[in-house]
Amino acid sequence: MNLRTPDQNPGWMSEDTLFDVRQLVPIVYVEALPVRLDPLGCVSEVGLLFTADGGEMTRAFVSGRVRHRETIRAALLRNLEKDLGPLAMPQLPASTAPYAVAEYFPAPSQSGLTDERQHAVALEYVVPVQGTCTPRQDALELSWLTPDEALTESVLAEFTGGRGELLRQALAHVGWGR
Amino acid sequence: MNLRTPDQNPGWMSEDTLFDVRQLVPIVYVEALPVRLDPLGCVSEVGLLFTADGGEMTRAFVSGRVRHRETIRAALLRNLEKDLGPLAMPQLPASTAPYAVAEYFPAPSQSGLTDERQHAVALEYVVPVQGTCTPRQDALELSWLTPDEALTESVLAEFTGGRGELLRQALAHVGWGR
Amino acid sequence: MNLRTPDQNPGWMSEDTLFDVRQLVPIVYVEALPVRLDPLGCVSEVGLLFTADGGEMTRAFVSGRVRHRETIRAALLRNLEKDLGPLAMPQLPASTAPYAVAEYFPAPSQSGLTDERQHAVALEYVVPVQGTCTPRQDALELSWLTPDEALTESVLAEFTGGRGELLRQALAHVGWGR
Amino acid sequence: MNLRTPDQNPGWMSEDTLFDVRQLVPIVYVEALPVRLDPLGCVSEVGLLFTADGGEMTRAFVSGRVRHRETIRAALLRNLEKDLGPLAMPQLPASTAPYAVAEYFPAPSQSGLTDERQHAVALEYVVPVQGTCTPRQDALELSWLTPDEALTESVLAEFTGGRGELLRQALAHVGWGR
Repeated sequence: MNLRTPDQNPGWMSEDTLFDVRQLVPIVYVEALPVRLDPLGCVSEVGLLFTADGGEMTRAFVSGRVRHRETIRAALLRNLEKDLGPLAMPQLPASTAPYAVAEYFPAPSQSGLTDERQHAVALEYVVPVQGTCTPRQDALELSWLTPDEALTESVLAEFTGGRGELLRQALAHVGWGR
Repeated sequence: MNLRTPDQNPGWMSEDTLFDVRQLVPIVYVEALPVRLDPLGCVSEVGLLFTADGGEMTRAFVSGRVRHRETIRAALLRNLEKDLGPLAMPQLPASTAPYAVAEYFPAPSQSGLTDERQHAVALEYVVPVQGTCTPRQDALELSWLTPDEALTESVLAEFTGGRGELLRQALAHVGWGR
Repeated sequence: MNLRTPDQNPGWMSEDTLFDVRQLVPIVYVEALPVRLDPLGCVSEVGLLFTADGGEMTRAFVSGRVRHRETIRAALLRNLEKDLGPLAMPQLPASTAPYAVAEYFPAPSQSGLTDERQHAVALEYVVPVQGTCTPRQDALELSWLTPDEALTESVLAEFTGGRGELLRQALAHVGWGR
Repeated sequence: MNLRTPDQNPGWMSEDTLFDVRQLVPIVYVEALPVRLDPLGCVSEVGLLFTADGGEMTRAFVSGRVRHRETIRAALLRNLEKDLGPLAMPQLPASTAPYAVAEYFPAPSQSGLTDERQHAVALEYVVPVQGTCTPRQDALELSWLTPDEALTESVLAEFTGGRGELLRQALAHVGWGR
């Protein structure tokens, strides 16, 4: 494979090329916890995807790669639409400064967060949604839980790669430390 | 005036009592810059009140005191409704952490921000609004300006007490440094 | 008591006057979690005061009122010195934007945080200290715990008024969600 | 060039490979504005590198790539040491959440920030330094300016690719909007 061949489709990559690039540089991701807010702005529910990732049932956030020449806002909107459907009406943040940066590494991870495919640097957001959400094709369901329900040990145990801690952090950020 | 008289109406104060209290402790305020966002979350317009404060025409943010036993979210919503009307549909932030804290002092101010009435500690927010806004009774108008228009010297000069710098800070926070 | 008597000592208040003012307006506080950082900026230890507050042993943060005409930075430094001694060498934050705002109310509290004396609005900071800390006079000790130790149920149970949740939030903010 | 050859030196790349990768994915950067703080935490001076980049004299922040399998904190410390020398004694932030994310694109840029080499996603920090700073080898000097000096039009004009706006944003973040 020769990456230097002039490319008709800049930013597009075959799976093989992406595999190679993932061994060379950290990959930029955006991750969002969709939430429903009450009129005062308090989080009433959080939306968690339930996927059958490699046979194992796991909880997931909205998550996806930022593509070459794609802005963070465009990547957020594209991934929210991919995971929640076109009618979710997400409210993108006025500032792109994330509330946290998650660093994923192949095990053994230096951060506690693992992703066997890659070193990923994920910008973390909490995104209010106002519309109707539908789970993405490969997800079994999208469930809405109260913050208290989401922070039970049984739900946290359904996250993999340390992502349960990210849920705690997201909820701490919006004022739920429990 | 005896403040120790049992109070039927806790948290309510006469203007005289408020005058006295303002000489004794810093007063908590919330201030919000109302903005309109495009679908990607970029600020397309900022809403500025134009008031005849003491005969002088000045620009103002949405601003108001947090009352005794009132939450920050309730104070934000109450003051947004007072200044923008009941149909503004503001989107309160998921986190109450402000992007900045403004400290107002009677002149000579230690912070560059002045308020002759009091020492005020104001929690600063950028609040997207989706509905129809109507200026409050004592305001001559509510005008919507693009960030570039709002940051012209002539508009900044219409703020008093250093508040033009707060507008710059708010716009820098959402990615406009110009 | 007549608050309108011209005051030689502006901002000073008798305990009686402070008692009265606390029934009328929210009181501004600064609160800081002192931390020790390793060279990479990771929190290696958190400093918790252990006080005998009304006979009961409780954990406490560095905490204190912002006085009339005092800046937030000056209040932070004064309270850090009061609670940690003059050799603590705290590193005040470059930005005064707090990572969270804690709202204390007399019970029944609307926020889960209680303070029977008052409605307090506390700006929350994590403050690295580099020097030698000595507990304040009314504190039995200042103990340094690793984040993992601090987040054990037995330590969290030693906080009162919901402050254990603030510790969780502070540690989540610096990347410890556990 | 075949990227799939097993690599003895994971994360290392030839300049040619880096050139290729830059056409395929956004590259993660950390950028820091070094500052000197007074005892109250106010920014008294900002450190700006002055480099002869391609013959043109330009101002620059501390800036560098996050390498594969390198943490953000390690990348920050490595780049601060590269640009300010080993005795700078930088105070890394307790939280890795940046105050802003800068998005650089080859012209025409969608963000106003340009970098002809690549699409870069830069995490932005303000980093207090306490020690002695020495400019890096390819820099002509490291100059310390007051915030007011740094925000003059003549200094801002010495930045390229829109980076002057980032300086404004950084100073707005720490309370200087002027």
